[in-house]
Amino acid sequence: MPSDLEKAMETLIMVFHRYADTEGSKASLNRKELKQLMETELSSFLKTQKDPAAIDRIMKDLDSNGDGEVNFEEFVSLVVGLSIACEQLFQKQKQSAGVKKH
Amino acid sequence: MPSDLEKAMETLIMVFHRYADTEGSKASLNRKELKQLMETELSSFLKTQKDPAAIDRIMKDLDSNGDGEVNFEEFVSLVVGLSIACEQLFQKQKQSAGVKKH
Repeated sequence: MPSDLEKAMETLIMVFHRYADTEGSKASLNRKELKQLMETELSSFLKTQKDPAAIDRIMKDLDSNGDGEVNFEEFVSLVVGLSIACEQLFQKQKQSAGVKKH
Repeated sequence: MPSDLEKAMETLIMVFHRYADTEGSKASLNRKELKQLMETELSSFLKTQKDPAAIDRIMKDLDSNGDGEVNFEEFVSLVVGLSIACEQLFQKQKQSAGVKKH
């Protein structure tokens, strides 16, 4: 039976390939695939991005090898950044909840 | 309703805190907590590590700020490394499965 952590890692791979496999190279997300992934999987994050060119900016930020596509390693760096930001928020909420109790 | 990707990111945070919160600093894993996490959440990976001092080596590798503990950012780098390795394996299996079909 896979552990919670193993299931989460498997989900990262499955979600990436759910979009990367739709067209072109199955090993990377082109712009359209990245847009679909973000609109479906990260819609709340995307809504916080006021910049209408957010997708293009994120694509450029992620595409560290400059091939115009986002491979799994580049995609995971987005997940890492978002997870770290969420965990810091989680810590702050825990601390402020702890302060209210005293 | 959170998406699959949001649930996976939430799981990374929940799993980290399931162990980090047991003793000492709630913002990081000490050696005992990292050992418990790995034995429970990454047991199959740990079994591939022949080195009896694997936990200490992994702890040293992850502890990039050298404070003797593993914070969330350092923990996520382990998850990234393992996910990338798994995804490459997944790609190879897909390619070899594709070759057999032709």
